[in-house]
Amino acid sequence: MTAKLYDLELSGNCYKARLLCALLGVDLEIVPVDFLAGEHRQPPLSDLNPFAEIPVFVDGDIVLRDSQAILVYIARKWGGERWLPDDAAGLARVTEWLVTAANEIARGPNDARLHDKFGYDLDVALARKKAARILGLLEARLSAHHWLALGRPTVADIACMPYVALSAEGGVPLDDYPAIRAWIARIRELPGFIGMPGI
Amino acid sequence: MTAKLYDLELSGNCYKARLLCALLGVDLEIVPVDFLAGEHRQPPLSDLNPFAEIPVFVDGDIVLRDSQAILVYIARKWGGERWLPDDAAGLARVTEWLVTAANEIARGPNDARLHDKFGYDLDVALARKKAARILGLLEARLSAHHWLALGRPTVADIACMPYVALSAEGGVPLDDYPAIRAWIARIRELPGFIGMPGI
Repeated sequence: MTAKLYDLELSGNCYKARLLCALLGVDLEIVPVDFLAGEHRQPPLSDLNPFAEIPVFVDGDIVLRDSQAILVYIARKWGGERWLPDDAAGLARVTEWLVTAANEIARGPNDARLHDKFGYDLDVALARKKAARILGLLEARLSAHHWLALGRPTVADIACMPYVALSAEGGVPLDDYPAIRAWIARIRELPGFIGMPGI
Repeated sequence: MTAKLYDLELSGNCYKARLLCALLGVDLEIVPVDFLAGEHRQPPLSDLNPFAEIPVFVDGDIVLRDSQAILVYIARKWGGERWLPDDAAGLARVTEWLVTAANEIARGPNDARLHDKFGYDLDVALARKKAARILGLLEARLSAHHWLALGRPTVADIACMPYVALSAEGGVPLDDYPAIRAWIARIRELPGFIGMPGI
């Protein structure tokens, strides 16, 4: 049975799941969600995910929320150890960046884009300040390493890339971050890569 | 060689690592950090963690930042599968709550406490609103389940509990959340449990 993704094309979080499935050659049934009408905040979707957010991922009787958790599932089920290692140090290193995607990147470039592109009522100056901080940290990391967590691409890179690559849509261009741009280019060259609007 | 935790006693994030080590019977060398003097923002600590935050965890040549990633490491290295399962669905379910700890709980009850207890300049009304939302979601979850992610305690519970239990220190008491209070009581009864100031 094909796994199902409740999806919004313009969501970087939904794109993470689409991208990893494409890289792994995993079939995915895309179920478009009418986000502007608030479909994700009403049953049946709010029953699947009480957090009332998308993406929501359904594989048989497994229902998952949060894009990072969905990446973990897809990587472990269909990707073996290649995208998500099993050993303590490797798993922890990947987790560092999964959490960075859900915290610093979500509250930085993602929030700035939510304000500029979707009209969210939030402190966009604070979001841009947080964006500059995390982009600086990523630039430093990627100046010395090809990939965020390990010596190969992992779900850490898939979790962090989308809202970094979409950063200009929140008023934070990547001109001053050459190592970040080179990293995005490396991800784009992975066999099976797919884009989304803006990437 | 004993693993080392760069630690602040009043930090719920540092406490997560101390608690899991206590539950697993793992020896830990505690290195107190002079947080108020900004020791974490200067070398050598800022070299260990460019994010300039604590806890920082060092085990031989492994250096880790982020309390969730540190929990993953400790659980996998010393706890086998008991605290962090290996299968795709179990690992993803735990990850859902690790991310909740780093996002909704960090930006809700934790931020409110940082404002009230440590004088952080942030939007405390927004933090309390976010706290109420995530406490409501946790209450609903814990009304139907003894533990957050699986049918047993996992690092999901260890990651989410501290700042929820400290919520009153940010002006958000737990009186209206009986299922959350019962869950905290269950965690307190785990063999080896240790507290921290306020818990």
